[in-house]
Amino acid sequence: MTTARLLITCADRSGIVQAVSSFLYHHGANITALDQYATATEGGTYFMRVEFVLPALISGRQVIEQAFAASVAAHYHMSWHLSIVEDTKKVGILVSKYDHALLELLWRWSRGLLPCVITHVVSNHEDLRSAVESFGVPFSVVKVTKDNKHEAEAQIARIMAGNDVLVLARYMQILSADFVKQWPMKIINIHHSFLPAFVGADPYRQAYDKGVKLIGATAHYVTADLDQGPIIEQNVERVSHRYSVSDLRELGEDVERNVLTRAVRWHLEDRVIVHNNKTIVFD
Amino acid sequence: MTTARLLITCADRSGIVQAVSSFLYHHGANITALDQYATATEGGTYFMRVEFVLPALISGRQVIEQAFAASVAAHYHMSWHLSIVEDTKKVGILVSKYDHALLELLWRWSRGLLPCVITHVVSNHEDLRSAVESFGVPFSVVKVTKDNKHEAEAQIARIMAGNDVLVLARYMQILSADFVKQWPMKIINIHHSFLPAFVGADPYRQAYDKGVKLIGATAHYVTADLDQGPIIEQNVERVSHRYSVSDLRELGEDVERNVLTRAVRWHLEDRVIVHNNKTIVFD
Amino acid sequence: MTTARLLITCADRSGIVQAVSSFLYHHGANITALDQYATATEGGTYFMRVEFVLPALISGRQVIEQAFAASVAAHYHMSWHLSIVEDTKKVGILVSKYDHALLELLWRWSRGLLPCVITHVVSNHEDLRSAVESFGVPFSVVKVTKDNKHEAEAQIARIMAGNDVLVLARYMQILSADFVKQWPMKIINIHHSFLPAFVGADPYRQAYDKGVKLIGATAHYVTADLDQGPIIEQNVERVSHRYSVSDLRELGEDVERNVLTRAVRWHLEDRVIVHNNKTIVFD
Amino acid sequence: MTTARLLITCADRSGIVQAVSSFLYHHGANITALDQYATATEGGTYFMRVEFVLPALISGRQVIEQAFAASVAAHYHMSWHLSIVEDTKKVGILVSKYDHALLELLWRWSRGLLPCVITHVVSNHEDLRSAVESFGVPFSVVKVTKDNKHEAEAQIARIMAGNDVLVLARYMQILSADFVKQWPMKIINIHHSFLPAFVGADPYRQAYDKGVKLIGATAHYVTADLDQGPIIEQNVERVSHRYSVSDLRELGEDVERNVLTRAVRWHLEDRVIVHNNKTIVFD
Repeated sequence: MTTARLLITCADRSGIVQAVSSFLYHHGANITALDQYATATEGGTYFMRVEFVLPALISGRQVIEQAFAASVAAHYHMSWHLSIVEDTKKVGILVSKYDHALLELLWRWSRGLLPCVITHVVSNHEDLRSAVESFGVPFSVVKVTKDNKHEAEAQIARIMAGNDVLVLARYMQILSADFVKQWPMKIINIHHSFLPAFVGADPYRQAYDKGVKLIGATAHYVTADLDQGPIIEQNVERVSHRYSVSDLRELGEDVERNVLTRAVRWHLEDRVIVHNNKTIVFD
Repeated sequence: MTTARLLITCADRSGIVQAVSSFLYHHGANITALDQYATATEGGTYFMRVEFVLPALISGRQVIEQAFAASVAAHYHMSWHLSIVEDTKKVGILVSKYDHALLELLWRWSRGLLPCVITHVVSNHEDLRSAVESFGVPFSVVKVTKDNKHEAEAQIARIMAGNDVLVLARYMQILSADFVKQWPMKIINIHHSFLPAFVGADPYRQAYDKGVKLIGATAHYVTADLDQGPIIEQNVERVSHRYSVSDLRELGEDVERNVLTRAVRWHLEDRVIVHNNKTIVFD
Repeated sequence: MTTARLLITCADRSGIVQAVSSFLYHHGANITALDQYATATEGGTYFMRVEFVLPALISGRQVIEQAFAASVAAHYHMSWHLSIVEDTKKVGILVSKYDHALLELLWRWSRGLLPCVITHVVSNHEDLRSAVESFGVPFSVVKVTKDNKHEAEAQIARIMAGNDVLVLARYMQILSADFVKQWPMKIINIHHSFLPAFVGADPYRQAYDKGVKLIGATAHYVTADLDQGPIIEQNVERVSHRYSVSDLRELGEDVERNVLTRAVRWHLEDRVIVHNNKTIVFD
Repeated sequence: MTTARLLITCADRSGIVQAVSSFLYHHGANITALDQYATATEGGTYFMRVEFVLPALISGRQVIEQAFAASVAAHYHMSWHLSIVEDTKKVGILVSKYDHALLELLWRWSRGLLPCVITHVVSNHEDLRSAVESFGVPFSVVKVTKDNKHEAEAQIARIMAGNDVLVLARYMQILSADFVKQWPMKIINIHHSFLPAFVGADPYRQAYDKGVKLIGATAHYVTADLDQGPIIEQNVERVSHRYSVSDLRELGEDVERNVLTRAVRWHLEDRVIVHNNKTIVFD
């Protein structure tokens, strides 16, 4: 038995559930999960996630895809994507010196809690080599300076080629618009504030100066617009006047670990659809 | 256009989504929400909630119900229930002296945030009469003593006849098994603890004596087993050694208001299915 | 027995606790609560809140104040304030049309959960008159237009004269800098977003457009800088793509009720000190 | 400069703050933190935590302790304890096969976030040896069977001798009353439920069967009464009918990590006083 997931976006019309479920039924699939959402009761945009199992012998991926494209998808003008769960997604990680988000990902992955292969970690610093290699994951350093940004990104692109998603686990370099364009909605970043509050540098310092009573973290897809990509997940923790900037950072790092982990897992489980710079998360 | 909801429970088999959605499609309905859950990937129990709109002219409720019973429901041996949203549910409330849960319900209802008609409030005390009547809701006192329990319950049953659901908004009398049997999964109670911790009397005192660091409240359906009915919703708030029993009560009452409100709204929106003394909540 | 509270701010030096507690001890007071905070381990600013009881016969307020001013306060160059708990604080409320924050305050107050007298509610609309008057609180309408802002504020000032604090329970008019100056750190506003995110108008719409996964509310003191005054309390609730703007508003109003209530209670209990546009909250 | 902390319990009387702060002042100490709590406004039990710095040259620990014992402590019949922060506490950890709680402690400790020395990890299984040793911490296996419980505990006692606190990071053996007696309020356990709900074995299974909507974890001191010792910290996470027992366990392990970490840190920072089987936590 093979497990697969279908993500669908189209203009909302009557009969979509019926059409998709009939298609799957007649191809021998059994639906195990189904979520849908429409932006309006009428005339909105429609989103669907279906998870189903089917005996591999009856229909292969290509057959299913071609049949679906030619029938239901064509009829409803769907944009859609089929994932086979057994095709484990490949993940590359970029990091600088902070290890908390990276280690949380590696640790969960090593316990079988992240359904992916972590193929490579790239950093602009040597610091985390032994931590990464102890998990049996290759580690490369790509130094980035003012002058070599283009070459550095080309080198990262070569190393990361073939991955399904890149995770910025506190990577302190800004990726160029050109680089980002190669990975549309496939780069996940963790920002250490409750966006849109405290965009830019040193958000814990900004939060301290402002005297907020909660600090947060935001996982989002990276777009050419810095800190403005679609938000996947956010969370906060309560703080008080007693928290210094470094106390905020220490607590905030726990939030970051937690938020990034959830966002990555949802992405790996094909739970996220992006529409109008916002996410639909079928969690 | 009429909005309706179908709640379904049956043994899990292939093709259910297809069968239900095809049925609705061919009767002219447009599915606006669909949730499903199965207790196991194979051989479990299957639950579904579908919300749909359909033009009243094409098919009336009775036609739909008979057709569904004879076809899909019969084929899959479903236990199922159809609600028409426009048939606003009738709610009766039982209360003693504490007003917080009652007022929260009345206040939200008066603002249009609870889709129901609150038909009557019955109490074993006079205290809350003017508070209730100021919302334009009839208020009756039914005194309960050791000796008149049977008659008192009969009187309550007469007053509450015709309601779809009863809410115990801190009603301090224990309803008899006979009474409860007349309202299966139609009586919602708010218990002032995080069940199953602190069953029985004076849970805030119990929580204080135990020194817990969180206090909670639980909304559940009432069964003959005291404090053991299916849990619909729970929540907690953080407390510390500084909280006296009355501080716990004061904070706990906020949790109760919040938890009961959500449970009642979910019930009114046909989001709750009970199975094996547990709830499936499609929220 | 009288209960009093002393709030102190001064440059941090050795011996402050000793000096204050000795002073109180020798005046016959018994300390029932003591909180302190310094912005740095050395050379910072020091804040203290002491609650104490003392037999009224031994020393009156004036005697205590004069003695404290002449000795400890002078020696440490303290800015300080003494409150007698029995001098119940007077609160005036400004509101427009939304009733949720107002009713929460009135309801808690009527149950004895807010230690104050609510003296008057002023609105720029008639809508909430009967709701307010049913609590036995005077209600006045002061219309505000482009042309009469100055006169309107003068009228509000006359009505509210003698109050200790003003609460803006969703008052949709911007108070002038002149008005605000008359009530330094004595006007509490509830802003319907997690500041500093979504300053300005229609924050729930902004939150919807941004696709945030949490929405919040912020209670803060009003300063001449709109939405920039010291934050007293904040909280958030989790939302998803399924929330429309009005769903966000409905849930957000619960957060607002809760956050404003806590901020007002802390202020009434002399738990808040403002320093550098941030609050120290001894909760 | 040396930093020290004084924890005090005594019958509540007037003048305690004055007496303690005067004592410290006259011995050249500067108070940097002070918390107090009394169980009643009059006639209760009084608890205090004072943190202070003092130049080591002026007064040594022994001098201070003797002077305090002979004066303030004797006068108020205090039970008290002085800790010198620079005397880093020694921590031994007991674990079985689950690694999540253990790794969280080791990882935070290795980052400097737990003020202690982790001296030794003892397990009844070999499984976690390399994980522990990679942090440079000695690891020993002490097998426990029905027949050797006495000898096994004697062996653990020898290995752990000299530690200030033992942490049971999911240690699946029940320690004997005799063993526990040697470590009064010095053994911290993490229980994988929101106590007092779900005492005993397999709490995630119990939580699943009950259908609770929140699952939790509880860190508590170990007493001879199984799962009944004073609660230090608790937390919960929201779950739904969709969580299988293993999903509950996976999420619950995150709560356990978080709750145990906080309890251990509070203990190490001398923030916890036990009274009547409950904790006062000056966090």
